[in-house]
Amino acid sequence: MSALATKAAPFSQRLSERQARLGTRACLGLDPRPEAHPLTDPARLGAASAWDPRVVSAVGRYLSTVLEATADLVSACKPQAAFFEALGPGGLALLAELTSLARDLGVPVIMDAKRGDIGTTAEAYARAYLEDGPFAADALTVNPYLGFDTVQPFVDAAIRTGRCVLVLVRTSNPGSGDVQALELAAGGTVASRVADRLTAIAEGLEADEDGYTAVGAVAGAPRDLPWLRSALPRSPLLVPGYGAQGAAGVDVAPAFDGAGFGAVVSASRTLTNGRGFEEATTFEEVAAMARAAAAAMRDDIEAALVLRTASSPA
Amino acid sequence: MSALATKAAPFSQRLSERQARLGTRACLGLDPRPEAHPLTDPARLGAASAWDPRVVSAVGRYLSTVLEATADLVSACKPQAAFFEALGPGGLALLAELTSLARDLGVPVIMDAKRGDIGTTAEAYARAYLEDGPFAADALTVNPYLGFDTVQPFVDAAIRTGRCVLVLVRTSNPGSGDVQALELAAGGTVASRVADRLTAIAEGLEADEDGYTAVGAVAGAPRDLPWLRSALPRSPLLVPGYGAQGAAGVDVAPAFDGAGFGAVVSASRTLTNGRGFEEATTFEEVAAMARAAAAAMRDDIEAALVLRTASSPA
Repeated sequence: MSALATKAAPFSQRLSERQARLGTRACLGLDPRPEAHPLTDPARLGAASAWDPRVVSAVGRYLSTVLEATADLVSACKPQAAFFEALGPGGLALLAELTSLARDLGVPVIMDAKRGDIGTTAEAYARAYLEDGPFAADALTVNPYLGFDTVQPFVDAAIRTGRCVLVLVRTSNPGSGDVQALELAAGGTVASRVADRLTAIAEGLEADEDGYTAVGAVAGAPRDLPWLRSALPRSPLLVPGYGAQGAAGVDVAPAFDGAGFGAVVSASRTLTNGRGFEEATTFEEVAAMARAAAAAMRDDIEAALVLRTASSPA
Repeated sequence: MSALATKAAPFSQRLSERQARLGTRACLGLDPRPEAHPLTDPARLGAASAWDPRVVSAVGRYLSTVLEATADLVSACKPQAAFFEALGPGGLALLAELTSLARDLGVPVIMDAKRGDIGTTAEAYARAYLEDGPFAADALTVNPYLGFDTVQPFVDAAIRTGRCVLVLVRTSNPGSGDVQALELAAGGTVASRVADRLTAIAEGLEADEDGYTAVGAVAGAPRDLPWLRSALPRSPLLVPGYGAQGAAGVDVAPAFDGAGFGAVVSASRTLTNGRGFEEATTFEEVAAMARAAAAAMRDDIEAALVLRTASSPA
């Protein structure tokens, strides 16, 4: 395993620098879905389950191919822990391998695990993903339902290691309002209260050159991006939902600050399993399709940012 | 791997029957903490990290010893995913081994992973823990912040396989009120709204002989147990916080219904790492200490239930 420097520049700064250098705000979602990808279907591989070693190996080769093919077209990658866990212990070994490969390729890793628990348990999750262990990532998504004392161990670890915590604020699923949009007696909603608390925490932290801290947020719904960007001025935003989930470049542009930083936009199915992928019969074809899809996503978002700058008042 | 019957009786019923048969409401928390247990300290084992295979092997033997020693004294066991994940891929292989051992011993497994995500991602988590895969458990803790459409895939899987979803409602940590206790404009709190929604879901589901469904809840704070028990009449309750976290038998008794069922009380440090354990020099001594601690916890809770029955109005 390659050693990871623990005194690296903060995640937010590394992300912005990479986005400026490569001209891409896209994030490659890595969701192993053996039944959905070409070349990894368990039935075709003669496997009885998704956690058969042949399936895990094939899906590992598939996602490694996509990651290597798109490394210069994306500003980060985002493994979704759930799909690795569904493959059993072998899936978690694959998760460690892919995060290691991403590090070797210089692609920052956003671990989308939506963890959250109390006290020493939160510390254990922070050790698992925000310290230099086998699952070491550059950022981790975290759920705030248990309270901000449970977010703190993640923040502490992130600051110590130059990493980032991305706290769930507002998601884009149909039932996202069930808890997040509840109106409070004191005014505002649960989500706006969470955003305010995150900003209060971030105000006490050191910021990078662009004003961003180790306290980021997950901002799923395009309609909420304008207020989230303004309510969370010191937080980098992870914006999922691009492509297969419905959002285009113009929808996600409001997540970025005036200089075009402070956010990263993720797509999984669009980049690994979108239209045309089902025709692939070789890993070379998968690589070519992934490159084309990632370049299109990159260009769509960059164009939306240029358009926004051109149309904004001088 | 042993095959697990997918048409088993519902978790709630299996739990109650086991509690009645063995006379214990205790749940064994399985948290691998290599630095805290005797005989597993990485430094003593000459290991540089907690995920060194020698450490994972030692902590696996330690927790297997405790599980086997206490199997007839506990009504369930509860692995805490965070501590396994902190040990890397080898830790997850250990998690699969321990859940398999628990099944062989007939001890129901409550996977404490506090998962939650949207759409197909929630389905992947449900496949990982509530279907017959390598991490198959009997119940899974779930976080409701993303909304009830994200809880539904877990409920669907639980019903299909005779398992259970334990949704976080109210926790016991200092900051638990940050989100859960927010007062709503429409009255009540976030936690009471979550409880009401769970009960509405449970009302549409088939119940076991005692009236419990596949929709359970996590109820962490003793002061909240009376209202949670009454607000969630169709939900089995997982009550953590016993022992090292401060609660005694009399504190957790209100989680149980009039017949003494509908809840299970978990302790981790008390049963695996409590006072006296640090003196253990052999696994035989660890087994004896774990048995003594589990029997004391069992008796404390049973006595509290008897006392409550004796003092309640006729």
